[in-house]
Amino acid sequence: MNYFSSGFKLGIVGGGQLGKMLLYETRKFDIHTIVLDPSDDAPCKIACNEFYQGDLMDFDTVYEFGKKADVVTIEIENVNVDALEKLEDEGIKVFPSPKTLRTIQNKATQKLFYKDNEIPAADFTRFAYTSEIESAISNKTLEFPFVWKSARFGYDGQGVKVVKSYADLDVLPNVECIAEEMVPFKNELAVIVARNPEGSIAVYPVVEMEFHPEANQVEYVICPARINPEIAEEAQKIALKVSESINHVGLLAVEMFQTQNDTILVNEVAPRPHNSGHYSIEASYTNQFEQHLRAILNLPLGNTQSKVAGIMVNLVGAEGYNGPVIYKHIEDIMKMDGVTPHIYGKKETRPFRKMGHVTIVNENMAEARKIAQDVKETIKVISK
Amino acid sequence: MNYFSSGFKLGIVGGGQLGKMLLYETRKFDIHTIVLDPSDDAPCKIACNEFYQGDLMDFDTVYEFGKKADVVTIEIENVNVDALEKLEDEGIKVFPSPKTLRTIQNKATQKLFYKDNEIPAADFTRFAYTSEIESAISNKTLEFPFVWKSARFGYDGQGVKVVKSYADLDVLPNVECIAEEMVPFKNELAVIVARNPEGSIAVYPVVEMEFHPEANQVEYVICPARINPEIAEEAQKIALKVSESINHVGLLAVEMFQTQNDTILVNEVAPRPHNSGHYSIEASYTNQFEQHLRAILNLPLGNTQSKVAGIMVNLVGAEGYNGPVIYKHIEDIMKMDGVTPHIYGKKETRPFRKMGHVTIVNENMAEARKIAQDVKETIKVISK
Repeated sequence: MNYFSSGFKLGIVGGGQLGKMLLYETRKFDIHTIVLDPSDDAPCKIACNEFYQGDLMDFDTVYEFGKKADVVTIEIENVNVDALEKLEDEGIKVFPSPKTLRTIQNKATQKLFYKDNEIPAADFTRFAYTSEIESAISNKTLEFPFVWKSARFGYDGQGVKVVKSYADLDVLPNVECIAEEMVPFKNELAVIVARNPEGSIAVYPVVEMEFHPEANQVEYVICPARINPEIAEEAQKIALKVSESINHVGLLAVEMFQTQNDTILVNEVAPRPHNSGHYSIEASYTNQFEQHLRAILNLPLGNTQSKVAGIMVNLVGAEGYNGPVIYKHIEDIMKMDGVTPHIYGKKETRPFRKMGHVTIVNENMAEARKIAQDVKETIKVISK
Repeated sequence: MNYFSSGFKLGIVGGGQLGKMLLYETRKFDIHTIVLDPSDDAPCKIACNEFYQGDLMDFDTVYEFGKKADVVTIEIENVNVDALEKLEDEGIKVFPSPKTLRTIQNKATQKLFYKDNEIPAADFTRFAYTSEIESAISNKTLEFPFVWKSARFGYDGQGVKVVKSYADLDVLPNVECIAEEMVPFKNELAVIVARNPEGSIAVYPVVEMEFHPEANQVEYVICPARINPEIAEEAQKIALKVSESINHVGLLAVEMFQTQNDTILVNEVAPRPHNSGHYSIEASYTNQFEQHLRAILNLPLGNTQSKVAGIMVNLVGAEGYNGPVIYKHIEDIMKMDGVTPHIYGKKETRPFRKMGHVTIVNENMAEARKIAQDVKETIKVISK
């Protein structure tokens, strides 16, 4: 099929910030886009050809939306998969596949998938309800501490809790969940793999999440990761194995731990463009959004190498501020070399809300890291 | 003023392809945009916040449009300057300034400006009407051959003609014009200068237009130009002089000739993002569209250096094809390393119509040039 001519329509389920960055790339290729999002104020509304407002979890809404498209993709995992499955049965191309989404949507299923496919991951036990954990502890089949994860809707760090005592357990919702072994790790890494329907594969360099020494919050996403080449190669190998095992089409972001003894364990995956790939807009030959399009449209995949070192800093709302957002000192960071802010356009800030990101690129990694710290210490997301 | 918050509106007069690429960048900064264009089908319609259809040469239309904005810019020179002047008088920021636009819109005035400011340019004579040229030749104040240029609406190579004989003269429109000395040149170069209202200046590397050896048509825009550093420095110096003399705000693209004896002569200027800067989207630390925004919003200017070598190939309609466009072999060029097509979304192709461009980036210039040639020889813009 020739996408570069009239008639073809790409459907995107979810109209948030990731969708918006994907839409920029559709303009390069002049692809007609339709977007579904629950909010009438969705970031994507401005840049798509047709916008539909509706509930992403409602079967009819997603099905009727998808029927208008030739290829359907998603920018968020929490969508009605039954509807996507019916669309696929009726011949519409859906990438990632509903089967993949089903595996990923449920963290217990996702973990079982790793086990079945011999993909290294932390040990875990699955529980139908959180309330069952207590007896497992009494029976000594489970010990404190462990990581509790809600099986469903665990998007973006919600639904994850380190449990050290019965008191920690008591406050958790009584839902399907897993108890995962605590893994002492040196580094949190991520690898993005692109795969098209023909099975062509392209893998991005390993990125590293650098944490704040006290706050236990990711401060910088750094590409390439400052790790030894054998570890990087191993991480890419494992990411490729996940992508192939799941028969993935589109982008797959694979988040991993590098343990104290240099083992790589898969933490979780996202079947779409991902925060860990935002650096690619400025640093890579082919950014992750263009690559996702190339993959789902069965076009040749682009060069995943970087032109320069890239570091990404998330812009989150400062503590103590709620209300109409101000990006204080943004002009000051724009004076710094190789700094590009990406403002997501949310009107209101809240503590820790993702309001944008900033990319720092430089030929020299040490210099980029220095500027990234300046950026982090300078800009503040506050309210009026 | 804080642009990164609600309330502020940027007005763009003209909603074509340049405006569209400028709009991508406004999304990074979450700037509210309003666009005026005569066509209800304008490329910008999809990516702006508010779209207005109207005649760019009509005083009331441009004035009423501009009143809605805080800062007004243009993506095409042929606009009603009286309206922009009135807007400026009423306190709305207009960049480029109406005064600059007036100087540039008329090629005779533009040439006089170079003379008055000691900016090197080819010699010329101004005529109120083409019909006056004949007597100038009889009186021996002018000789064949020369370059005839219409003073007004000479946008994009139209209204330019090499005149070698009376027969060539006879077919020209009887309008205000200039007769310019023929300059034998080695290279056609261009330099983009950014300047903000505070007077901060940033200059891009010199680019080189490589011509087809027979067809006398630009085939490749190459950054950096493959010329000796002294020539490059001289070209940048002259471009900066033009920008300062004209007290420019925003981007100014200065097109120049490098003569056979290595003199630099200014050919013409464009007070906006320009075809010669498209390579910057993929190759530069700060692309020309982001830089134009930074300049007109009085933000700090970004790094103008390149990450890698960049070459741009225009995609123009092939001869002999009229009708619904097909980009033949586009998948083949997308297989090539560092190749990104930009499709402008025009539905119909015509011979030589600008339908898009392709950027080739590579660490190595010779390799980029080789791939650019492959691109040029592979893709064909034809019709169904």
